[in-house]
Amino acid sequence: MKSSLDPWSVSGKINYEKLVKEFGINPMPKLPQKFLKHLLFRRKKIFAQRDFEKILKAKKFVMMTGLMPSGKFHLGHKIVTEQIIFYQKLGAKVYVAVADIEAYNTRNPDLQELNKIALEEYLTNYIAIGLKPKNCDFYFQSSRSKDSKKSNAYYSLVGLAARHATFNEFKAVYGNISPAKMMSSLFQTSDMLHPQLKEFEGPIPVVVPVGIDQDPHLRIARDISQRIKVNNFLQLSSTYHKFLPGLDTGKMSSSNPNSYIALTDSAKEVEIKIKKYAFSGGQPTVKEHKEKGGNPDIDISYQYLTFFEENDKKLEKIYNDYKSGKLLTSELKELAIKKINSFLKQHQQKKEKARKQIDKFI
Amino acid sequence: MKSSLDPWSVSGKINYEKLVKEFGINPMPKLPQKFLKHLLFRRKKIFAQRDFEKILKAKKFVMMTGLMPSGKFHLGHKIVTEQIIFYQKLGAKVYVAVADIEAYNTRNPDLQELNKIALEEYLTNYIAIGLKPKNCDFYFQSSRSKDSKKSNAYYSLVGLAARHATFNEFKAVYGNISPAKMMSSLFQTSDMLHPQLKEFEGPIPVVVPVGIDQDPHLRIARDISQRIKVNNFLQLSSTYHKFLPGLDTGKMSSSNPNSYIALTDSAKEVEIKIKKYAFSGGQPTVKEHKEKGGNPDIDISYQYLTFFEENDKKLEKIYNDYKSGKLLTSELKELAIKKINSFLKQHQQKKEKARKQIDKFI
Repeated sequence: MKSSLDPWSVSGKINYEKLVKEFGINPMPKLPQKFLKHLLFRRKKIFAQRDFEKILKAKKFVMMTGLMPSGKFHLGHKIVTEQIIFYQKLGAKVYVAVADIEAYNTRNPDLQELNKIALEEYLTNYIAIGLKPKNCDFYFQSSRSKDSKKSNAYYSLVGLAARHATFNEFKAVYGNISPAKMMSSLFQTSDMLHPQLKEFEGPIPVVVPVGIDQDPHLRIARDISQRIKVNNFLQLSSTYHKFLPGLDTGKMSSSNPNSYIALTDSAKEVEIKIKKYAFSGGQPTVKEHKEKGGNPDIDISYQYLTFFEENDKKLEKIYNDYKSGKLLTSELKELAIKKINSFLKQHQQKKEKARKQIDKFI
Repeated sequence: MKSSLDPWSVSGKINYEKLVKEFGINPMPKLPQKFLKHLLFRRKKIFAQRDFEKILKAKKFVMMTGLMPSGKFHLGHKIVTEQIIFYQKLGAKVYVAVADIEAYNTRNPDLQELNKIALEEYLTNYIAIGLKPKNCDFYFQSSRSKDSKKSNAYYSLVGLAARHATFNEFKAVYGNISPAKMMSSLFQTSDMLHPQLKEFEGPIPVVVPVGIDQDPHLRIARDISQRIKVNNFLQLSSTYHKFLPGLDTGKMSSSNPNSYIALTDSAKEVEIKIKKYAFSGGQPTVKEHKEKGGNPDIDISYQYLTFFEENDKKLEKIYNDYKSGKLLTSELKELAIKKINSFLKQHQQKKEKARKQIDKFI
């Protein structure tokens, strides 16, 4: 399968080391203990960065992220969500943009539906995973703020940013470009830069945790931030995380139903999906598996365990047992099913309570 | 001199009849008396239109215009201003956009200076010419409203409009295009269409009086208005006026100091400018002039009188006397100087009072 990667589509297997070189981003620096306690940092799921030292040194900083309100919320979305909550607990103010103007421009021109998906699919899940209203600015691109000074400043930045980029830059960064994509990119630029406007926090370090496919938006925003002279923007920081793989490898994506486990899936659905669709690194027969051993590095069930099994020692044992052939594919799948279903059961209970809290965020 | 015409530059002599054909716009329909009382309509200074019948039939309508806060307010600007005031007196609600985001993108990236020019050069002159605060929504593109619902709706429309236009259309309409110009065009689109949003007036006829050089903006906005399905926009109406010619022919433009008479010019300055720079249709010598007569059609002083001499009969006599050679060039220039200076004297007095009223508009 050929691999392709841009902010609007990701397909195929991804060679992260090659991407680090191609995109000119840097490996993670030595991290303090409070970061390493988190699975995503400890296991290098967050594997690269730009200007992240600034965040490690900062007393105060902002975490900014966006969500595209399309399709079902799935396990892949959990990775960004966990980072939002991690940074919020660390004391950062978190900005969460619903990219509804971008979604209108690049996907679905039904703003009401986009609004519903954003609140019922995304925000509710964020709350269930642990997002708190305090130090959280959750907003829609189409209605930035109830404070007109804030709205005017945010949208003006979208407009002014256009002076500071050329079509050739958009083409170089995105491959191809349309008015709709260009507008989306400039909205993203304002999403990332506006926390530093005087109407918001003023100049402050901002970290944007993204999948590597979103780096083009960051490159445009970083370039513009240094050219726009009306504001003294500190350069943006960013981290890059690996995708939670889809059942069929590639990226877990709500536009490909054979790839994802939704957070609304039942225990039975999860069992069927893992057993039937999760790509296996095992051998064709049990006999052969016991003799030759399996390959956990390409096994999707094992990959899921690296996100869900918190205990490093247990995970290492699973890895070794599968590789030696001691652990069978059916057993490995069973472990993944249990872990995911245990998370989903708790999550679905929390989600019922979360619905009632939506109003605190908007 | 070759003629060139786009929204960002006008130069050379303009063949209005050719433009009507090229741009696919229509001549003016039969106008009711209340329109013909105004010099600009009666003398066909406003010479063409799109969908103007809609305005003639409407009980309620909006007049929308914009100003580019660059350089000095000059006699050429008076033509749009007079139309704003004409429509306001007729009972229309007038929307006046300060195109500061556009100015930032295409001219001068100093927002504070743009703000100052807009208020001190433009708004003050509008008030002196007769603009009233009632039924007037005067706003900056960079800070649409103090009501965040209105701001959010206006700016969202800028963002959503991008879905409904292609680069090829921008290229076809503007000749060349950059991110900055594209953004300017989409802001103009929202300027023209947003009065019909539910947060403003709701669906309502809107007339945009422009110089023919601004028609590309209208063509883009008209196309987008019919494609954007979230709103039921009535198609825009527009009228096209002739430019008040510059002293050296072409368009009077604040970026060409040899072309304009500013509304702050002293009587002496006006005298010098007309005598020294105003292009003459007279003969090289008085003797020759008396024999052959002058050409009022190309004479700039005469052109100015067509805008400043309200009395049709007096104007006709001047035309005939100059053509026959009875009226000398020096005498014609003297008539123009007198008329302009009489206007400027009154205007400059009114302007002192106007300054105090700025607050009522913002």
